[in-house]
Amino acid sequence: MSDSNGTRFFEDFEPGQTFDLGTYPPLSEDDIVTFARQWDPQYFHVDPEAAKDSMFKGLVASGWHTCVILMNLFVTNFPGLGASQGSPGLDNVRFIRPVRPGDSLSGRLTVLDTQPSSSRPASGKVQTRMELVNQEGDLVCSVQAWGFYARRSPALGS
Amino acid sequence: MSDSNGTRFFEDFEPGQTFDLGTYPPLSEDDIVTFARQWDPQYFHVDPEAAKDSMFKGLVASGWHTCVILMNLFVTNFPGLGASQGSPGLDNVRFIRPVRPGDSLSGRLTVLDTQPSSSRPASGKVQTRMELVNQEGDLVCSVQAWGFYARRSPALGS
Repeated sequence: MSDSNGTRFFEDFEPGQTFDLGTYPPLSEDDIVTFARQWDPQYFHVDPEAAKDSMFKGLVASGWHTCVILMNLFVTNFPGLGASQGSPGLDNVRFIRPVRPGDSLSGRLTVLDTQPSSSRPASGKVQTRMELVNQEGDLVCSVQAWGFYARRSPALGS
Repeated sequence: MSDSNGTRFFEDFEPGQTFDLGTYPPLSEDDIVTFARQWDPQYFHVDPEAAKDSMFKGLVASGWHTCVILMNLFVTNFPGLGASQGSPGLDNVRFIRPVRPGDSLSGRLTVLDTQPSSSRPASGKVQTRMELVNQEGDLVCSVQAWGFYARRSPALGS
């Protein structure tokens, strides 16, 4: 549920809700290397030849690259994100399977918990699990995130 | 301690060790907006005018941007990273203070724990806390990461 402007407020989140976050364009070798040269230039992320001798047996995307792809899908495709007020943090970030050139990643989100904010009566906290799966349907990355969302009706003081 | 090639193996990590990860160049408004347009295009990360009306009262960097700056400092400046074999995941990622245009971020790393890998006798797991502080010395971001590192001497089977 969201309001007439499509904005999803704190009150609109309920544990168990799930959302499809859509699919990111297939990753090329160049995409993987370009990201990693800037942010995570370990040889198995930036050198396709040397990566063959790594434990991954070939070039793999930085785990941070998979995380920001998941964030891109969330911000682009989550319906009614206008009430988002940032995040205090993430837990249980897991890099489960390597992501390789040609992989196509899709996102999904599950609402885990909602809590009124004790410090901000106009906001509430929502915990979600965001996951990326590859074109085979295998889970490659999972993140639990807390986010602040504006309340439709600010809480009364207590 | 590291070997004659400078590579730091699993056996060279001990809880309590600390490392300076150096300082990243000051972030410009353009740096913040460019990153966020691609990965986290929420208005308080991409629109300096609109961001003035946000809870942040101005443009702030995406938390993901601060994370990858920390990763860049780690990969660039951590001494002897050649034995790194990737990461199974992260815990307790915390976005503690906003990062704004002009901020200059420095990294530090503390070794928290080391564990032989039960599944990979040639590797061990090292848990670290990586932190970013701004030019005022205030903590802005903290990440706990597990990493796999090659052993100098593979474990015997048991």
